[in-house]
Amino acid sequence: MTTTPRTFDAVDVIRTKRDGGRLSDAAIDWVIAAYTRGVVADEQMAALTMAILLNGMDRAEIARWTAAMVASGDRMDVAGLRRDGRVLRTVDKHSTGGVGDKITLPLGPLVAAFGVAVPQLSGRGLGHTGGTLDKLEAIPGWRAELSTDALMAQLRDVGAVVAAAGPGLAPADARLYALRDVTGTVEAIPLIASSIMSKKIAEGTSALVLDVKVGSGAFMKTIDDARELARTMVDLGADAGVRTVALLTDMSTPLGLTAGNALEVAEAVEVLAGGGPADVVELTLALAREMLDAAGVTDADPAAALADGRAMDVWRRMIAAQGGDPDAPLPVAKETETVVAPASGTLARLDALGVGVAAWRLGAGRARKEDPVQAGAGITLHARPGDTVTAGQPLLTLHTDTPEAFGRAREALDGAVEVTPDGAPGTAGRGRPADRSIVLERVARP
Amino acid sequence: MTTTPRTFDAVDVIRTKRDGGRLSDAAIDWVIAAYTRGVVADEQMAALTMAILLNGMDRAEIARWTAAMVASGDRMDVAGLRRDGRVLRTVDKHSTGGVGDKITLPLGPLVAAFGVAVPQLSGRGLGHTGGTLDKLEAIPGWRAELSTDALMAQLRDVGAVVAAAGPGLAPADARLYALRDVTGTVEAIPLIASSIMSKKIAEGTSALVLDVKVGSGAFMKTIDDARELARTMVDLGADAGVRTVALLTDMSTPLGLTAGNALEVAEAVEVLAGGGPADVVELTLALAREMLDAAGVTDADPAAALADGRAMDVWRRMIAAQGGDPDAPLPVAKETETVVAPASGTLARLDALGVGVAAWRLGAGRARKEDPVQAGAGITLHARPGDTVTAGQPLLTLHTDTPEAFGRAREALDGAVEVTPDGAPGTAGRGRPADRSIVLERVARP
Repeated sequence: MTTTPRTFDAVDVIRTKRDGGRLSDAAIDWVIAAYTRGVVADEQMAALTMAILLNGMDRAEIARWTAAMVASGDRMDVAGLRRDGRVLRTVDKHSTGGVGDKITLPLGPLVAAFGVAVPQLSGRGLGHTGGTLDKLEAIPGWRAELSTDALMAQLRDVGAVVAAAGPGLAPADARLYALRDVTGTVEAIPLIASSIMSKKIAEGTSALVLDVKVGSGAFMKTIDDARELARTMVDLGADAGVRTVALLTDMSTPLGLTAGNALEVAEAVEVLAGGGPADVVELTLALAREMLDAAGVTDADPAAALADGRAMDVWRRMIAAQGGDPDAPLPVAKETETVVAPASGTLARLDALGVGVAAWRLGAGRARKEDPVQAGAGITLHARPGDTVTAGQPLLTLHTDTPEAFGRAREALDGAVEVTPDGAPGTAGRGRPADRSIVLERVARP
Repeated sequence: MTTTPRTFDAVDVIRTKRDGGRLSDAAIDWVIAAYTRGVVADEQMAALTMAILLNGMDRAEIARWTAAMVASGDRMDVAGLRRDGRVLRTVDKHSTGGVGDKITLPLGPLVAAFGVAVPQLSGRGLGHTGGTLDKLEAIPGWRAELSTDALMAQLRDVGAVVAAAGPGLAPADARLYALRDVTGTVEAIPLIASSIMSKKIAEGTSALVLDVKVGSGAFMKTIDDARELARTMVDLGADAGVRTVALLTDMSTPLGLTAGNALEVAEAVEVLAGGGPADVVELTLALAREMLDAAGVTDADPAAALADGRAMDVWRRMIAAQGGDPDAPLPVAKETETVVAPASGTLARLDALGVGVAAWRLGAGRARKEDPVQAGAGITLHARPGDTVTAGQPLLTLHTDTPEAFGRAREALDGAVEVTPDGAPGTAGRGRPADRSIVLERVARP
């Protein structure tokens, strides 16, 4: 962007993409800047994003689109942080969102335990996948809003931070995401990729590990779509000088045994204490190894740091630094109900989307941005796909402060639970956790 | 629409079309009504129209979309008019717009001279094709705005009327057209067809003849697009009980020898007086025959009604009924300049778009809805494609009240005029009017 800014006509830009053409660098710079200023109207951007969804963008267009969104706001420089006179290594992680995905909570402290700074600017949940900030806000006193100075100081002193992204970071993305949400244009891979990567690039991390979820509870329902999204983001990272690796991970069934804010915090603390469900531990360690590798830390043993309390120490300092009390009891929902196994046999399927929507309806998530969430609401799982169950045994416990929600939560679970007689083949879905890794593929630049 | 109205989610409707699906009747009814009420936002309709442009609508969807736009406002019942105790036959005509297209002016009075009522609700011009109302407003005193009662009375008493469509007729179309104009979604054949036909169906005419222009000066640049648009509109007419026929007509070069408001009125009066350029007369008679046929009038001789003054009598009554003085001198532009032939030979091409844009820049048209037009501005042609010309002879006269416009008008004519040495083959474009009919095809239901 060393040339003099050109002015374009919004209709010409829309027509170019509508007719299957490429948007020039100058056109992309103009349209993002003009949209941020309100010169390009919402209805014009809506038409353009629909044309992008249907006709696509090539790699160079996506890279420029992302750069223009970064340029629409402030940039942070977490990679420039120093501790004891030496530049701190930084690595961030982003998940595309899944049911029961509390991995950020143990992962940040675990990686920070090896002297790497982990800046995690997160959002609140909308829809059936919970938001990391909503989860941490279940901890009494904890606050998500930090000034940039406080955030940088915590990164330097504690090494791990999870905070709300400020409005100055890629403001074009914030406006565009709200527009896409109401115009049926969320599901455009170039726009998903540039939305995620613009915030990470603006944040200034030097490395990034992506957890791209695949399956019923994820945004990407097929491995092909997930792979395309992952490759697009890995390329965008490379083009922007951010070392980026992606893992495609299973989201056909919930992660761990809890979905809901306080319930997931408790499970994350179990992992930090050296316990926790096998799949949560597996994925936490897989992502930690990738992050440490991306940060240039070799010979690290993250499993040991979970077992010996080093990760827990960082967690406690991270929570306290943001006003939270790591020893305070977590909120508990007022009411519970149990869902039992409909038959005896093998639990063949426990669908992530069904569980996610049920937890959302119980109060763990919000339908609109301005809605509150219930800290104690959610679902506890008592069995996992592959387990043998007996008719009438508890499968799930539903938690809520608003018992009138039980009915609609149970409706969401209709068809989400499948028990097959022993010996019969199960249908689609993840089998025993022991049979198959939660990590399906790894995407990195050669 | 006998069932209880259903409520839809705008994003679901957008996604259905985005993913190549069909919109149900109920979804179409809902989205048009909700958009008219402001419940569906402009950005949502913009995304939907882009998806329609790229993924299309089938015949039943287009018919329902059109019916929903009709239902968004008032309906007139011109077909119910009576004169001397008998139901009047009604037939309307619509042109998709071209350069120098003044055919409505002689055509309405000509057809009305045979006892058929011709209601023509028209618009103002935007862009390089002039609007019929702008042309008639060049006549001192003439006014376009009529109440429905006055319009119906004039139809009954005079038989011909050209008036502004009131805001109550298909208001969804007015809002949608303004949106499409700024979002690059004007060029969607289903939306063009439903926009035109919704107004004609709401008007209540029992028959309709469409003049679908093809060529550089038209909206449809290719015969294939024009044919698709014509077929779509003929089908929509049939589905709504309006007997509809379309002629595809040439718009590669301007129609007649004038483009501009008062200039075109003068040429129309020449035709009504039994003279006028051959192509204007040819097209007026072709459309008149179709209209009379559609109205069930057989054995009519429209050429005779031009020659013997019957059409002129109706014209004079029509103009006077709307406050105009048919004998008043027409406005004349303050300044003129001449464009001469660049070489000797045959005028191989005189491009409609170039002439249209030049006339527009001279002041005959408007760039924005709220701009005024100059009554006297425009272009007079002194030769037509196929004519032999001598280097330096006048080809065009440019007329304007704002002489600073001459420069930009001449720029628009760059490349629009092509003279080939005698004996050399001409390039694309219409040859001698005598060589080829202006009517290219006729589209009607079998």
